Amino acid sequence: MTKWVYSFGDGQAEGGAGDRNLLGGKGANLAEMSGLGLPVPPGFTLTTEVCTAYYENDETYPAELRDQVQEAMGLVETIVGARFGDAENPLLVSVRSGARASMPGMMDTVLNLGLNDDTVQALARHSGNERFAWDSYRRFIQMYSDVVLGIDHYHFEGLLEDLKEDKGLRLDTDLSADDLRQLVDQFKAKVKDALGEAFPQDVNDQLWGAIGAVFGSWQNARAVTYRRLHDIPASWGTAVNIQAMVFGNMGDDSATGVAFTRDPSTGERRFFGEYLINAQGEDVVAGIRTPQHLTLAARENAKDDKPSLQEVMPTVFAELEAIYQRLEAHYRDMQDIEFTVQRGSLYMLQTRSGKRTAEAAIRIAVEMVNEGLLHREEAVQRVAPDSLDQLLHPTLDPEADRQVITQGLPASPGAATGKVAFSADQAESLAAQGEDILLVRIETSPEDIHGMHAARGILTSRGGMTSHAAVVARGMGRPCVSGAGQLRIDYQTQTMQVGDNKIVAGDVITIDGGSGEVMLGEVATIQPKLSGDFATLMAWANDIRQLGIRTNAETPAEAKAAIKFGAEGIGLCRTEHMFFDADRILAVREMILAEDLAGRQAALAKILPMQRQDFVDLFTIMTGLPVTIRLLDPPLHEFLPRSDAELAQLANVTGATAEDLRFRANQLHEYNPMLGHRGCRLGISYPEIYEMQARAIFEAAALVSAEQGKTVVPEVMIPLIASKAEFTFLQARIAAVADQVAAEQGSELEYLIGTMIELPRAALRAGEIAEGAEFFSFGTNDLTQTVFGISRDDSAGFLEDYHDKGILDGDPFATLDIDGVGEMVALASERGRKSRPGLKLGICGEHGGDPASIAFCQSIGLDYVSCSPFRVPIARLAAAQAAVKNTQ
Amino acid sequence: MTKWVYSFGDGQAEGGAGDRNLLGGKGANLAEMSGLGLPVPPGFTLTTEVCTAYYENDETYPAELRDQVQEAMGLVETIVGARFGDAENPLLVSVRSGARASMPGMMDTVLNLGLNDDTVQALARHSGNERFAWDSYRRFIQMYSDVVLGIDHYHFEGLLEDLKEDKGLRLDTDLSADDLRQLVDQFKAKVKDALGEAFPQDVNDQLWGAIGAVFGSWQNARAVTYRRLHDIPASWGTAVNIQAMVFGNMGDDSATGVAFTRDPSTGERRFFGEYLINAQGEDVVAGIRTPQHLTLAARENAKDDKPSLQEVMPTVFAELEAIYQRLEAHYRDMQDIEFTVQRGSLYMLQTRSGKRTAEAAIRIAVEMVNEGLLHREEAVQRVAPDSLDQLLHPTLDPEADRQVITQGLPASPGAATGKVAFSADQAESLAAQGEDILLVRIETSPEDIHGMHAARGILTSRGGMTSHAAVVARGMGRPCVSGAGQLRIDYQTQTMQVGDNKIVAGDVITIDGGSGEVMLGEVATIQPKLSGDFATLMAWANDIRQLGIRTNAETPAEAKAAIKFGAEGIGLCRTEHMFFDADRILAVREMILAEDLAGRQAALAKILPMQRQDFVDLFTIMTGLPVTIRLLDPPLHEFLPRSDAELAQLANVTGATAEDLRFRANQLHEYNPMLGHRGCRLGISYPEIYEMQARAIFEAAALVSAEQGKTVVPEVMIPLIASKAEFTFLQARIAAVADQVAAEQGSELEYLIGTMIELPRAALRAGEIAEGAEFFSFGTNDLTQTVFGISRDDSAGFLEDYHDKGILDGDPFATLDIDGVGEMVALASERGRKSRPGLKLGICGEHGGDPASIAFCQSIGLDYVSCSPFRVPIARLAAAQAAVKNTQ
Repeated sequence: MTKWVYSFGDGQAEGGAGDRNLLGGKGANLAEMSGLGLPVPPGFTLTTEVCTAYYENDETYPAELRDQVQEAMGLVETIVGARFGDAENPLLVSVRSGARASMPGMMDTVLNLGLNDDTVQALARHSGNERFAWDSYRRFIQMYSDVVLGIDHYHFEGLLEDLKEDKGLRLDTDLSADDLRQLVDQFKAKVKDALGEAFPQDVNDQLWGAIGAVFGSWQNARAVTYRRLHDIPASWGTAVNIQAMVFGNMGDDSATGVAFTRDPSTGERRFFGEYLINAQGEDVVAGIRTPQHLTLAARENAKDDKPSLQEVMPTVFAELEAIYQRLEAHYRDMQDIEFTVQRGSLYMLQTRSGKRTAEAAIRIAVEMVNEGLLHREEAVQRVAPDSLDQLLHPTLDPEADRQVITQGLPASPGAATGKVAFSADQAESLAAQGEDILLVRIETSPEDIHGMHAARGILTSRGGMTSHAAVVARGMGRPCVSGAGQLRIDYQTQTMQVGDNKIVAGDVITIDGGSGEVMLGEVATIQPKLSGDFATLMAWANDIRQLGIRTNAETPAEAKAAIKFGAEGIGLCRTEHMFFDADRILAVREMILAEDLAGRQAALAKILPMQRQDFVDLFTIMTGLPVTIRLLDPPLHEFLPRSDAELAQLANVTGATAEDLRFRANQLHEYNPMLGHRGCRLGISYPEIYEMQARAIFEAAALVSAEQGKTVVPEVMIPLIASKAEFTFLQARIAAVADQVAAEQGSELEYLIGTMIELPRAALRAGEIAEGAEFFSFGTNDLTQTVFGISRDDSAGFLEDYHDKGILDGDPFATLDIDGVGEMVALASERGRKSRPGLKLGICGEHGGDPASIAFCQSIGLDYVSCSPFRVPIARLAAAQAAVKNTQ
Repeated sequence: MTKWVYSFGDGQAEGGAGDRNLLGGKGANLAEMSGLGLPVPPGFTLTTEVCTAYYENDETYPAELRDQVQEAMGLVETIVGARFGDAENPLLVSVRSGARASMPGMMDTVLNLGLNDDTVQALARHSGNERFAWDSYRRFIQMYSDVVLGIDHYHFEGLLEDLKEDKGLRLDTDLSADDLRQLVDQFKAKVKDALGEAFPQDVNDQLWGAIGAVFGSWQNARAVTYRRLHDIPASWGTAVNIQAMVFGNMGDDSATGVAFTRDPSTGERRFFGEYLINAQGEDVVAGIRTPQHLTLAARENAKDDKPSLQEVMPTVFAELEAIYQRLEAHYRDMQDIEFTVQRGSLYMLQTRSGKRTAEAAIRIAVEMVNEGLLHREEAVQRVAPDSLDQLLHPTLDPEADRQVITQGLPASPGAATGKVAFSADQAESLAAQGEDILLVRIETSPEDIHGMHAARGILTSRGGMTSHAAVVARGMGRPCVSGAGQLRIDYQTQTMQVGDNKIVAGDVITIDGGSGEVMLGEVATIQPKLSGDFATLMAWANDIRQLGIRTNAETPAEAKAAIKFGAEGIGLCRTEHMFFDADRILAVREMILAEDLAGRQAALAKILPMQRQDFVDLFTIMTGLPVTIRLLDPPLHEFLPRSDAELAQLANVTGATAEDLRFRANQLHEYNPMLGHRGCRLGISYPEIYEMQARAIFEAAALVSAEQGKTVVPEVMIPLIASKAEFTFLQARIAAVADQVAAEQGSELEYLIGTMIELPRAALRAGEIAEGAEFFSFGTNDLTQTVFGISRDDSAGFLEDYHDKGILDGDPFATLDIDGVGEMVALASERGRKSRPGLKLGICGEHGGDPASIAFCQSIGLDYVSCSPFRVPIARLAAAQAAVKNTQ
């Protein structure tokens, strides 16, 4: 028989902190504290498996559940010495959700459950406080009606306000026991009116109603959205915790409070929290009364004249202090705790690892190592790698006002403010005059790169998290919001509109690339500061990790930034990005438009010295670190102008007619450029292009090797291979160029020739491809596109529907789809290494900077990951975490 | 030690007919005949492995080759009783290519090798015919110089003509021995002049020169093109056959000839061939003299007064007759033989299975079964399934003149003549007036369907073998030439131009969908006739095959045609093709442009009755056979108009502004529609569309079941699934519609819900998808696109480069790529059946009609293949062949 219910209380528990998946976070920690002998009101937990079973069986419960709940309730009754529903000495309980991952405020809670017209009298007698009893009852009816019966709380609040007005009273606390009894009558009438039946008096009906409501709240809109934002699978389910009530509102010897064992903003080691005398937990959060400081030091520091708990209840405070220190030592982490004092007795209601800022997380982790609480391997696990983003980019001042007009995708983190420019040229020329510019485009293309460079940030109305704008912006470290689909951008009138807001070129807006928000006007930002603790933690990460960390970089600026952030090489240099400079694009276009080989070669000869200088610069900056250079990848039409005016200009320069150019451009048009004439297919059609690039690489390597007295070993990467025959054909040509260059230079060249694995067929045929290829780099962007059959530039819209309907968790372009794309990567790795033991394996898709994906890369034994420069620290930390996890 | 050389002769041989892969076709059959004791001049074969090794090792030979050749030559010398290069009694040899597959005339041959200034004297003495000796020598010098030394034969022919003119002679045979000796001197001078060195006198130099030339000719342009056209891998290589010369030109008691054991045009059982007295084999082919009939009957039948071989050399003829009958009985197939008579002795120089027309192949196969020569299982193997196309479509009269102006891809077989129309509307209206129309478009789209229906044939300048035009044309049985990239089509001026040929609307052209040729004017065609033998053979195929054969069909006409051709159901009904009728497209567009669910539902309600009638028609025609219906697949923008005029018209009807419509159309624009918002992604975003389609299907099934008294079991197919979650989401909605319809009709419904497997991820996750899906149909068109990462509409151009450079054999869209796509299909089949034993598996991509792909489907245990109606007979035959092959 499945055990669906786990009890805790009286210094014992059926579970513990290790049972988080089964008991949820709250339930597991209540059990743990109870087991430690801490003062926890007794209770029991319905497991997350009940929730899963409930949803799998048309919202019905397992057969054995009722008996198990009854038995557990009996245990609580015995410990407390009261009975649930008893008219003499009634037990009251709270019913709370508690998922595996913390989802604060997302799901429902019912307090004071077990009150009815009889038990309220008993509570009054027993507590000797009639007002308390009736106040508890009216709170219960309101909460239960709202949460379980679906009657909005404002109905009840209205009645309360009316009563206070009638009586000429200002505060709730001014109401007498009689007033509250009258209010309870009104509340019950309201329920009867709304539902056609009376408020439930049977405490078991109340209990099962509340349980059902908590399980139901797992699928409420708030919870679904929260899970989506935090990548929490719907299949996890929530537990339900039922616990004997304790009351912080029984008088001035009662209180309730929350605390952190260290400062969650800065990480400083000081006990930190708030409490309220004579209140229930909800009151602290609700903000009706201003809570008081826990410690004397904090009160004095804040120059607050209300006394601290340390002063008011010194015994309780001392007990609390001992408990928090014990909890921190026990959990070996900063704790977020909730407590209640009932008539001088302290009760612990919750403990959990406290949420903290990235800065605090780093400080706490480092200090706990210094305190001997943690090993370094544990410390690096305590900081969420993605949270480092907060430290690496300027962020919006959380205190500042903001007027959000629309929201797109958080494509590249950081905040930026500037004047709107609708073209790259405009952005560049205004930036040259010293203006802060935000480049706003429907979509960006490689031709916009100079404008993206010049701009403070980029906003697009089309394209996903891995659209051109997003990928390039992340590489540059520019904030970017992409796919803000509600924006109607009109280049002709130089305006954009969303709702009633019309923005014209030159207007100032702000974007938050961390949230996707677009705001009117300027919003204040905070600059990042990297503390000494950051450096310490990152040094530990370097010691621990096994994966190499490279960067995706093309420009000297990117390469330098990446080195600063700790990159150990370049994993992906996209050579096409080098072709868009104004002084090159013309030669590139000449090459594309050439009628024959001779014409192409003439144009390529003009590009060669520039391309060589690119590599000289990169090799020089990287000083002997490996540099993987991908040969030309995008389809040629991406380099051609689109407008008639530009075509006419090009015609002028090349001597061709505009009609001929249009015909050629039309010939190059593709229905699905992603699946078109690109990658190695270009190298096969026009070997002279790759030969020029190979020559530029090898000549640069020879030059820099001689200059630095250190051998540069370039890794030449052939993109979009689908078969061994393609690879062999191109490898031979590249090697022939290397032989020529070596002969011309009179020196030996060292180099590797390898390939990107970015097509399913390449993964399948990896064994034979590795017979020739000396390294594989997984291009998981394109591999995700082909394995799923989705275009990253077109998918933002419909993936939204997938999220809304619970069909897809997360974004496969952000976190590697392990079940599908991951199987292809693992299979290719295995087949590749089987054919060439020790084959060098890396990943250079966007996933190379994603912690979950990095963990996968570690698990299948890749050699390195490569990511955009600003994600290098994140990747270093994630790699360290993955290494620790992998040895465990 | 590898054996590189195999000897034959004197009634013995080291190989036989089974060694075709090693010895090539010619070598294997020479060995076989020799082993049978037939009169074959002795010789030896350098294996195809020598060729492969030669190309793999920078065109050098294996170390042991020279010794093995010398030894084999020694054997020939012993049998013939002459010595190679001997000045007294010289052995002369022929050097011929011989690949695994017949490549007639594609590679090089050298005859009379071993002649030099000394041996020619010996040959004269030995033959007693000085003129013959010098004639042989001058022929040898010319042939060797042309083939081996690279001196074009016209140089030598010029000298010959000059000499005849000097001497006042008309025919070559008028030249005397002295004349020829003089000519030899001139030829040798010519060689010295051209090369700077003398014609080789060393016979071993001659031999190795010729061997090198034959191996070299494997890579000549002709051979490469031929291999590409016939899907022969470059890796096969050619063998080289070296054989003692026999001479049909030693006088009037000598002769040479070629023959077929049955008529290769009609298949009639009659000995059939030609010969020439006093000639070498090359003369028969060259057509300088008119050859004579072999048999008396044939001569009389042709009213030819030149005597037959039967009359001139009755003994030799009798011997030849006995041999041909023996060969046919031995090989159990119609043979194509070559023979030479040297001074009254018959020598066999070649036998091979004779090429034949499809008609002949069928007749021969059927008659050989009736003669007891073959089993039915063998007979069905004797007809190339693809050749049936010749019988199913009208074809160009091979005798007719044709003026070819350009060539595209042979996209849909058959020939068509008509007046050029540049738009579908034009094509339709002119066809309605009784004109024969050829629709010419840069590309076609679903909106052109009515014009394609109305036209006799379709010609496009863009798109591959599986472009929209090609797929639809094959489905309709319309001839089509696609991707004729040299055509410049100008819709505005209603003209198209290629080279100097300008064609205006209304001009008559002819296309040959079997060759891809485009011709000016009308070219006569021949109508197909299906003989009784065809029906017999197809009945045998039905008995033998295990795979089911379904068809891809949407219209009643297609369904009826498919039934006529023997289809056993519909494997793919593409519902989107039903949405383009003029009376529907408006409602479809309304649905797409609707702002909300209610608007979409209103539009869908208009489409429902029409869609239901579509299925009523199909179910009625298919009378209980299974029908697989694919729910809407293409992206919605395919249904929207593109031109401003059409947009304005639509705005008029819908009440939206043209600007709004353009915005919406722009919103729907996709960079890579193939990877975009289509397939089940539409069903997830707009479940109401699939629900309408499901309702139409189930209501139609209920209607037709009641009418026919036979349960219709529709198979509802969800396209483009990538994950189980997608399938589950849609399956639930479709099943709910079925429940509703069943309740409304008060009757039970039987149906299956399954999916297309057309994405790599679906193949990988097939196990869990099959937990829900009741059948899989492999959509290998899209699977090929995603596994390779190539767009079928964009790949024609660069795949051409792949073929030219030997990187790809064949077209993966025509024949399934077994190594890549095939592994995905096999893996999905295995995982699917593991999770759901007996899972119904089919294939509905274009590969379903391709014989090689069908063999693969059989080998991995699929249940059926589905192909366009006109390929059903081909698929039936191919399936029978696959079944036989699989049991072997």
